[in-house]
Amino acid sequence: MSTTGKVIRCKAAIVWKPGGSFSIEEVEVAPPKAKEVRIKMVATALCGTEMKMLKDKNLQHQHYPIIMGHEGAGIVESVGEGVSTVKAGDKVIALFLPQCGECTSCLNSADNFCIKLKQAETHLMSDGTSRFTCKGKPVYHFGNTSTFSEYTVMDEISVAKIDAAAPLEKVFLVSCGFSTGYGGAINTAKVTPGSTCAVFGLGGVGLSVIMGCKAAGATRIIAVDINKDKFEKAKEVGATECINPQDYEKPIQEVLFDLTGDGVDFSFEVIGNPETVAAALASCHESHGVCVIIGLIIGVQLNISGHLFFSGRSLKGSVYGGWKGRDGASKLVSDYMAKKINLDALITHSLNLDKINEAVELMKTGKCVRCVLLL
Amino acid sequence: MSTTGKVIRCKAAIVWKPGGSFSIEEVEVAPPKAKEVRIKMVATALCGTEMKMLKDKNLQHQHYPIIMGHEGAGIVESVGEGVSTVKAGDKVIALFLPQCGECTSCLNSADNFCIKLKQAETHLMSDGTSRFTCKGKPVYHFGNTSTFSEYTVMDEISVAKIDAAAPLEKVFLVSCGFSTGYGGAINTAKVTPGSTCAVFGLGGVGLSVIMGCKAAGATRIIAVDINKDKFEKAKEVGATECINPQDYEKPIQEVLFDLTGDGVDFSFEVIGNPETVAAALASCHESHGVCVIIGLIIGVQLNISGHLFFSGRSLKGSVYGGWKGRDGASKLVSDYMAKKINLDALITHSLNLDKINEAVELMKTGKCVRCVLLL
Repeated sequence: MSTTGKVIRCKAAIVWKPGGSFSIEEVEVAPPKAKEVRIKMVATALCGTEMKMLKDKNLQHQHYPIIMGHEGAGIVESVGEGVSTVKAGDKVIALFLPQCGECTSCLNSADNFCIKLKQAETHLMSDGTSRFTCKGKPVYHFGNTSTFSEYTVMDEISVAKIDAAAPLEKVFLVSCGFSTGYGGAINTAKVTPGSTCAVFGLGGVGLSVIMGCKAAGATRIIAVDINKDKFEKAKEVGATECINPQDYEKPIQEVLFDLTGDGVDFSFEVIGNPETVAAALASCHESHGVCVIIGLIIGVQLNISGHLFFSGRSLKGSVYGGWKGRDGASKLVSDYMAKKINLDALITHSLNLDKINEAVELMKTGKCVRCVLLL
Repeated sequence: MSTTGKVIRCKAAIVWKPGGSFSIEEVEVAPPKAKEVRIKMVATALCGTEMKMLKDKNLQHQHYPIIMGHEGAGIVESVGEGVSTVKAGDKVIALFLPQCGECTSCLNSADNFCIKLKQAETHLMSDGTSRFTCKGKPVYHFGNTSTFSEYTVMDEISVAKIDAAAPLEKVFLVSCGFSTGYGGAINTAKVTPGSTCAVFGLGGVGLSVIMGCKAAGATRIIAVDINKDKFEKAKEVGATECINPQDYEKPIQEVLFDLTGDGVDFSFEVIGNPETVAAALASCHESHGVCVIIGLIIGVQLNISGHLFFSGRSLKGSVYGGWKGRDGASKLVSDYMAKKINLDALITHSLNLDKINEAVELMKTGKCVRCVLLL
């Protein structure tokens, strides 16, 4: 029996208050309105952003209860009026970074930060209402996506149609983590063949940066983390050396100068810590070094010595690895199907959505890279 | 009678202690040692760096008495052993940024920060001694150059040979101010045709940035300064609009968003003030905006909201406008002789070196762009 046009009752992981844990609840998901799409989610995962939101007061806001989740893939269940680019049954990637195709960013080939993203600040759909309710209360959306629900509603511009043969429990990773890291190296830093790179932070995004550096032809990729358990995986995906700042008395930037002579050509901060941003910038070559900030540093102040910029270093932001949302996700899934990129190495665990709090623990302890949550 | 190999007695402007003013003194200038060159200076000027050194405790050090001056041009008087690229009688530009031709920066086409510059930290020649004495005391060098002296000694790698027909009282400006600003726009920011730029600070370097933006094809160049007396000259060299932050209640970055819709494509900080750096970065386009720091920000901390980098902005340092020292200075003088660049607009006053303290006052009050000091 068709569900089109009807409210769907299903399970979702809700956070009821700032700093709370996930609670599995039955929710109601309203049908998609004009230019919206309702998706049956198949695979999702916790990314560093959710982990920060759970614990970091700077990232907590007034919009609770909320259904988080911004890395995921699913199948279109039904579409609202005027939707022309996807139809029921299409496999899609959820996009926290939409691609409206009409704003000045979308129309500029060098840009990817679609300004429609700003609507996400309300944590509601663009008509100012929510499509979720739970126990009679409206529930807030998150990141244009809210993937921690068996069904969710997104704007048409926030989903990317992908190859019908793609395995969703793998390719959901192009929704955020993989693309953000891989593209940060390839598109934002524009890593050059023969270069030396340093990657600070070896979670799923950091490992994807390493893959991007390797694909771009870097000959030396130095992986940096205070958890040495992460080094094996880093080497598996392309790191040529791994170092733990806690093994040295010197600041890590001095260690990297000792190792490289003149500093690294490209450095990547994939933690979202302002002190690490300053160290990553200081680690790169005085004249041509480029440091890319990939970790989430919203709500914090960077305190950086002006001297670091004197001789020509650059500090660059990067969102979704510089890919335009819909175009990038579709392309990367095609690349996966053509075996040009490797996502499998990043998926170390698998659980049902019910077990999301166990996945939180796995992430906290650094035991998993990505734990796919199946719905 | 030849002066080669002999000590020369001449006039120089000395600063005897931190925060002091200039004092015209008779000094002794020793002959050049191996790989050094003695220059008869013809034209020099105070640049923002000297102005800061006179008043800013962060830039004051232990090396007094000192002969400052790093923007100047002159004629080779004699050369030391092993000097092969210039000879007595050659017209040369003084370079605070040398080009040794051998270090990793000089050998990399993308770099210009010759690492020999580091020797300048001692304020002595590379053998650890000074070529200047005054009243029996050694006097420190400055910036590889010490142009505020009728005769000075520099390393061979710190002088650029230029066209014998070049008027030194004009082309001395490629020694620092013009090249730093013009190249900051062309080489570092890589300003694109049709773009919108904002230039914060309208001294000689800021005006040169405007010229660079115009030469690169920017269609809108917004000049920003709190001294509206500088607006006429800014428009003369290419600014399309001039704004004074003190005329608005809003922060200047919001004013620039109001004026441009999405922020400027390129912004330039040409003051060396950490708050202005943050404002200039915030003024540029969220996704592709590039902010170049040209003002001297040594000795200060930048305090910047991490959020500004979230969506893709870049913050870049720039030294000597990205030009390699010797190659850049020679090329720019050729460009001047070929009437491709305009230096004359920047030279508003002329005094003899004796009157250097009057030139300091002209700079302090913003009454002059560059006051050429003739020797």
